[in-house]
Amino acid sequence: MVLYSQERGVFMPTIFAKIIAREIPAHFVYEDDQVVAFLDISQATKGHTLVCPKEPFQNIFEMPEELAAHVFKVATKLSTGIKSAFKADGLNILSNNGEVAGQTVFHFHLHLIPRYDKEEVKFPLKNNMGNLDVEDYKERARLIRAALS
Amino acid sequence: MVLYSQERGVFMPTIFAKIIAREIPAHFVYEDDQVVAFLDISQATKGHTLVCPKEPFQNIFEMPEELAAHVFKVATKLSTGIKSAFKADGLNILSNNGEVAGQTVFHFHLHLIPRYDKEEVKFPLKNNMGNLDVEDYKERARLIRAALS
Repeated sequence: MVLYSQERGVFMPTIFAKIIAREIPAHFVYEDDQVVAFLDISQATKGHTLVCPKEPFQNIFEMPEELAAHVFKVATKLSTGIKSAFKADGLNILSNNGEVAGQTVFHFHLHLIPRYDKEEVKFPLKNNMGNLDVEDYKERARLIRAALS
Repeated sequence: MVLYSQERGVFMPTIFAKIIAREIPAHFVYEDDQVVAFLDISQATKGHTLVCPKEPFQNIFEMPEELAAHVFKVATKLSTGIKSAFKADGLNILSNNGEVAGQTVFHFHLHLIPRYDKEEVKFPLKNNMGNLDVEDYKERARLIRAALS
């Protein structure tokens, strides 16, 4: 697997490539041969999850259609799992492609953002990095994995 | 095909079911046996397009995974087409599931929102219904179809 590719303009591994390579820790909720999902370190809401291909395609414009389809199939399964795990009332799916669209990590990904009554979410998503205890992340990831199994 | 279903809580055809049944006009950019795409009447940005399954699943939680995968495969193709048609600089993909998440039409759909430098987009998307001349919609739809072919 190519973790970065000069040809594609990915000159350095992004933080997601490092997470996928287990060089940086993350709270994983799903993995198969092509796709991973893990908690967004910045939890816009409780259970906010990212789904991405293992290969570092920069954005939707680079994504092979079959791989994109598989990412979304996983996202569909996860959406129901996340809703169930946290008794969410709704969920946004968001993908930002290109800096002008708010993309900050240049490795294609989908945000799954569970929504709860009376809790407003601002877009672009706010970065609240590091505002949770590691045990809170662990428990959230555990709840999602349990709902999927 | 079931265009509305009491079992699924869809008691009345939504505006999208009526568009798919050609009871209400829309500017189509793509159609196959399972999926359609047409311009959002409220163009958040130039080329703002909706992609949805023909069958009226209310939201992502109801969507069969294989159908969801196909919808996203089409969305991937369309994203590249839309970027090319309008020389967009980026693109957001957004799906609102549940009223709390900003869903207003209860028929699952993805928004494809091309983004342009120096043009801000507010979420939730503003409703600017009827602000374009019909010829403008026609031209935008034509450009996308041309980019896809």
